[in-house]
Formats: sequence, structure tokens, C-alpha cells
Amino acid sequence: MLAERARAASHGLALATRAQKDRALEAMADALCTHEDAILAANAEDVARAEDGGAPPNIVDRLRLTPERLAGMAQGLREVAGLPDPVGEVVRGSTLANGLELRQVRVPFGVVGMIYEARPNVTADAAGICLKSGNAVLLRGSSSASASNAAIVAALRSAVADAGLESDVVQLVPADSRDTVKELMRARGLVDVLIPRGGAGLIRSVVEESTVPVIETGVGNCHVYVDRAADLDKALAIVVNAKTQRTSVCNAAESLLVHADVADAFLPRVVAALQDAGVTVHGDAAFQALDGVVPATDEDYAEEYLSLDISAAVVPDLEAAIRHIRRYSSQHTEAIVTEDLAAARHFTAAVDSAAVLVNASTRFTDGGEFGFGAEIGISTQKLHARGPMGLPEMTSTKYVVTGDGHVR
Amino acid sequence: MLAERARAASHGLALATRAQKDRALEAMADALCTHEDAILAANAEDVARAEDGGAPPNIVDRLRLTPERLAGMAQGLREVAGLPDPVGEVVRGSTLANGLELRQVRVPFGVVGMIYEARPNVTADAAGICLKSGNAVLLRGSSSASASNAAIVAALRSAVADAGLESDVVQLVPADSRDTVKELMRARGLVDVLIPRGGAGLIRSVVEESTVPVIETGVGNCHVYVDRAADLDKALAIVVNAKTQRTSVCNAAESLLVHADVADAFLPRVVAALQDAGVTVHGDAAFQALDGVVPATDEDYAEEYLSLDISAAVVPDLEAAIRHIRRYSSQHTEAIVTEDLAAARHFTAAVDSAAVLVNASTRFTDGGEFGFGAEIGISTQKLHARGPMGLPEMTSTKYVVTGDGHVR
Repeated sequence: MLAERARAASHGLALATRAQKDRALEAMADALCTHEDAILAANAEDVARAEDGGAPPNIVDRLRLTPERLAGMAQGLREVAGLPDPVGEVVRGSTLANGLELRQVRVPFGVVGMIYEARPNVTADAAGICLKSGNAVLLRGSSSASASNAAIVAALRSAVADAGLESDVVQLVPADSRDTVKELMRARGLVDVLIPRGGAGLIRSVVEESTVPVIETGVGNCHVYVDRAADLDKALAIVVNAKTQRTSVCNAAESLLVHADVADAFLPRVVAALQDAGVTVHGDAAFQALDGVVPATDEDYAEEYLSLDISAAVVPDLEAAIRHIRRYSSQHTEAIVTEDLAAARHFTAAVDSAAVLVNASTRFTDGGEFGFGAEIGISTQKLHARGPMGLPEMTSTKYVVTGDGHVR
Repeated sequence: MLAERARAASHGLALATRAQKDRALEAMADALCTHEDAILAANAEDVARAEDGGAPPNIVDRLRLTPERLAGMAQGLREVAGLPDPVGEVVRGSTLANGLELRQVRVPFGVVGMIYEARPNVTADAAGICLKSGNAVLLRGSSSASASNAAIVAALRSAVADAGLESDVVQLVPADSRDTVKELMRARGLVDVLIPRGGAGLIRSVVEESTVPVIETGVGNCHVYVDRAADLDKALAIVVNAKTQRTSVCNAAESLLVHADVADAFLPRVVAALQDAGVTVHGDAAFQALDGVVPATDEDYAEEYLSLDISAAVVPDLEAAIRHIRRYSSQHTEAIVTEDLAAARHFTAAVDSAAVLVNASTRFTDGGEFGFGAEIGISTQKLHARGPMGLPEMTSTKYVVTGDGHVR
């Protein structure tokens, strides 16, 4: 039902001009401000329910909206209005030998389903990115944020209608039962793509059960490899930044590999710096020679901690580092620290991850850092989009071919 | 097991240079010629078995190899060798404000699974396209072609090994039971993408059951819409060509829509021309006024005939044509015949199919016709690739980011 209304509304949105869509985005931003009281009151309900239910402080914090956070959401919508419209972009084109004019043009998917966890800001962000890319969106947030999401979507829908587009291009899917997720996953033909954002369990279940095509996002067991030819000062700064600058995000480093030739020089420094920052190092035998390092198991090397923990191992050479990464990585982001061009070239060619960095923190794998302006998630799959997904990644293409009575 | 060997072999292939891959492709072409006797003998077994089993002549013809067809397969491999290598192509790149150098580079998927029906030429074509795009391939052909496929793959593997690549980059999956298809569909993590080529039933079952990402190909319920402003001579030529030039292919027209304003002038001409070409017209009331037109049901409008049949209806206007297409199309290819620029612009914008043609036969939706040089299939889905898929569509990308100790 919701999906059918989204499909019907998507036809008009696909033909909307950039000017119409940008007007709607500005109206959506304004509406978040004019509906501030209602949204914050609804959010207070969600926060009270979470606290009554004993939710941990970090979860409550992710759920909580403030006037500043709401203003940030509005600002995000205005920034999306300022980005180029991906729809209509000619990806390639040529005139064929027989005179046919061929153009491959970006078009919206049609209907996008977002399935995500607590943060209510995702509701506005996803609605804005989908609208700008010409897609109707079905938003299936967490039940813990249901009052907040309802208030936000009510504001956005009224703004969309005021701006002259169909309000059904933005719809909230009830979060009262898991059945609504199942319906989205079975809505083949009505929903064109599902994007799950959240923990590994959520993403795995959507990937396995959905008959609608899925774009996997965000699980990051990211590695930093410190090569024999590393500048150890840069290595130290990069490891500490990648692990500690923000621990709860998918591009935080979770595992450290160090070439044996620099282990004696680097291990004491890096372990001390990590421990000073509050990090527990789960290491192999070489690391365990240092005070406070706890033994790493196979599970540690496979773990996305999202906390002040890091797994660590010494490797005999570059090839061993690549093999370790091949075995344990979630193919999100890996970094090498080296001054050796051949090592950098081989690592970037042989490591099969969405982003491979040389002498830079894994934290740079991000749509904002990459200059994309807006990001709906970071794809860790190989089909369609890989890495940070901006507006162009929210489109498909079609071929438009113009002739003058051409037959074969 | 096969998939694990493919995965292991894919690592080396991903790093192979264009020169190495082109040498292997030339060797594969040579091997089809030097193994001609063995391949034709194996094919004769398959053909005899099919004939004994009472297979219809068109199926037997698709199965049969001749020295000329084998030479054509070899020529196809040489043409793939002549195409640019998609791997390593920089799709976009920039230097960020902080000095980080960002490049998005094409990389192979890794392991591709092909599931296809009778034609043994697909075995060589798919092996060549996958090898050139740096992908190991698992070929799951039809059991009716199992002897032919085994002989072809044996020849190709020996050539790949002679050229210095691992022979496991090309492997045949036994076709003795449907379990081997199921194993491919469950090989998530080992197989990166599955491409089913064949009938609608095969494709639907793979799409619904696979946990490996799938690229749907080839079901085409293609429409030709003859607008009020059509040049009726062009329209006649296009309809007859689109329907009859080759009926068994996905880009053949299956349905004809005619604007009411030109029905009186066009219907007698088009029905006569189609009937002269042996086509049965399944029409609505307006078409049934003409001799020999049989009544069309809802099923007719939804049908991909792949035969000398066409469904036909008169529509009151352009919008009704678009609504009809939206309801029945498989979103492969639709064509409008019109001299009216506004009608052409609206049709190409509003019709959501992989290819939308103006004044040209639907038969042009084809990798060869589009100048792609090689085609692994025609995608009718919106994720990743849409329309004819050439070598670039057989790749993913990764971001390579180079810094000098950058941290956030």
C-alpha cells in the first residue's frame, strides 16, 4: 500500500526539474524549524521511553534531538539543495556509424527503501538525498525513534506538498513490527532498491532475505598496515587517529599490522600511545611482550569493535599483511603507511576494499571528506556503488537513442 | 570447492596486465581451432542426445556447432582482445582541499557466475569477457550442452595455462543436477555476482533464491508506439523490422500501440504488412475490425512471445501509451515513432526502460549495435548496469587515496 503510493508518486518526481526539487528541499529545511516544538516534544517521548527501558547513555544520546541538532538537519537539507542534480546527467554518448544518436542518461531508481536504526537525523538526511536524486523514499526507522520520526516526516511531507510535489514521495513505514521490514524486502517491482544502515546483524538479515536488490553499507573491520618503509612518526599519528578520533563509526581502524623489521622500533611507541588514549590492545605473541597487551583470538581479528579496542599482529612481510587483510577484512577501508612507492602500488592494487589509503587515516573514507557533499551510506559491496555513496550513486541510467526511421 | 579455486585464482588475474590477458585471449581463440575435432565430436554427442530426446529443431539448431560457428567464437575472443582493458580506468579523481589525492579506479568484481541455457557459444563468449575484465568465471551451462561445454572449457583452460595465467580462472560447473545452481546461488563471499541468461523462469528463480548479488538480463516485452505525429512509412518499416527481423531475441517487439488519430490510416497497412510477414496480430477491438486479427487478452499484452505474434492496441493519446507501457513492459526497450519533438522528449523522459528509442527499431538495443564491442547480456535491472553490458559493466571500482601522513 505505502509502496504502491510511493511508486505512483515516483513517476511525477522523476520528471520534476532541479528548481522544483530545490524549492522542496528549502521548504523541508524551513519546516524542520517551524515544527521544532512538535518534533522536540515527540523526541522527548522517545527519549523518556528509552531511559525508562534502561537504554545505555550512548544509545539515548544518539536518539536525542536538540534545537542545534535540528538546525543541523535543516542545514543538511539546504546543502543538498545546493548540490548538482544527478538526474539527466549524460554519462556517455556518441553518434553511431549509422547515424543513430546514443546517450546514456542518469535517471532515478524510482522508489528507495531505507531501513535504519536509532538516529532520527537519518530520516531527514535520507529524505533529502532521495528527493534530490528523484526517488520516492520509504523510511523504516527504529521503533525507539517512532514518535520523532513521525513528527519529522509530518513536517517534511507538508513542506513537499507546499512546494508543489506529491507528499507521498516521502513516507514513513510503521516501525511497530518486524513485518513491515519483511514487506519492504518482498516488495519487488514496487521498491527498486533497499539500503539498510545499521549493525552487521540488520544488514546481514536484509541481504539474505530480500528479493528487492540491496546495497550493503557500513560494516568496517578496517586495517592499518605499517610497512617496513614506514615513516614511524606518520604511522603513529595515523594509527592513533584512525582508532581513537571517533570509535563508533565504520571507518575507524579495528586492526593494526606491523612489518617485523620495524616491530622493535614501533611496537613500544604505538602500544604506549594507544594505551595513553585508553585503548586496549589485543595482540599476538610479539605484542604481548609489552605490558597491558591482552591476547588476541581469531575472533578479535574478525571483530568490528566500534570501541576503544584494537587487534594487532606483526607480519613477516607485505604479502603476509595482504593475506591477513584478505582473510579478515570486511572490505571497507585499509591503509598502508610506507615511503616505498612499490609497496604502496602493490598494496593498493592487491587489497580489494572499497577504499585503500596510503599514508592517511582510515577516517577519511567518508562522503563529506571525499567532497561528495552528501552521503547516504558507505557501500561495502561491489555491485552498483562501492565506498561513500553520494547523489550520483542514488541513480540508475537509461539509454536514449534517436534515429530517423532506422531499421536493421 | 570450484568457487574457492576461482576465488584463489581471481587474485592473480586481478593483477594481470592487459598484455598478459590479451595473450591468453589469443591463445584461447587458437585453442578453439586446434581442438576443433574434439569440440565438434563432443557437440555431435549433445546434438544426437537432443534429437533422440525429441528436442524441437530450433533448440537443436541453437545447440549445434559447425566449423564456421567455432571460427566465429574464436573471432569473438580475438575481438575482445582488441578492446580496451576496463581494469585500472580512472573513473574520477581529484585532489582534495587537504592535499589528499583521490582516484576512483575500475577493478574486477573477482568471481562471476554465469548460469545459461543451451547455446554453447556463450561458454567461450563469457569466458573471454570475464577474463578481459579480470574476473574468474564459473560457467554453469545447460545439461543438454554438457559435452560441448566440457570440450570447449578444456580447450580454453589449456590455452589460459599456456599463456601463463592460472587455468582456474575459467571453470565449468557440472550441469548434472540443479544442486550446482543452488550452490552458486548460496556462494556469498566466494562468488561476487551471478548473471543468469535464458528464459524468464530461470531468471526469476535465480533472482528470488540467490543470496549472491544478481544482474538480471534479457526478458523483453518491448513496445513500439506509433504517435499521432508519426511518419507512417517510417512507422511501418520500424514495426515490421522490430517484430520480424529476428523473433527469438529479447529486443524484438512484442506489442504495438497506435494513437487513435492515425488508426484509420495506419491499422490496415500495418496489419497487412505484418500478416504478409507471417505475423499473427492479437488486437483490441479496433484491431479486430480487420480480417485475421485475433482478440488480445491481458496475458497477451504481458507476453514476451519470441515468435511471429504481436499484441496490438489503439490508445487515445501519448499518456495512455505511457500508462500501458508502465503496466505491461519488462522495462527492456520501448520505441516511439513521431516527428513531434515534444512527444519524443516526453516519451523518452517518462518511459522507464533500459533503452528508449525514437524513430528506430527496438532491435538496436544491443551491445554490438551500440558499439561496445562485446556484450555479456542486456540488463533489465536498475542496479549497477542497465541495458547492454560491455566490459566496463563487468567491473566494480575502488577508491585509492594517497596522502603524506594525513589525519583528521
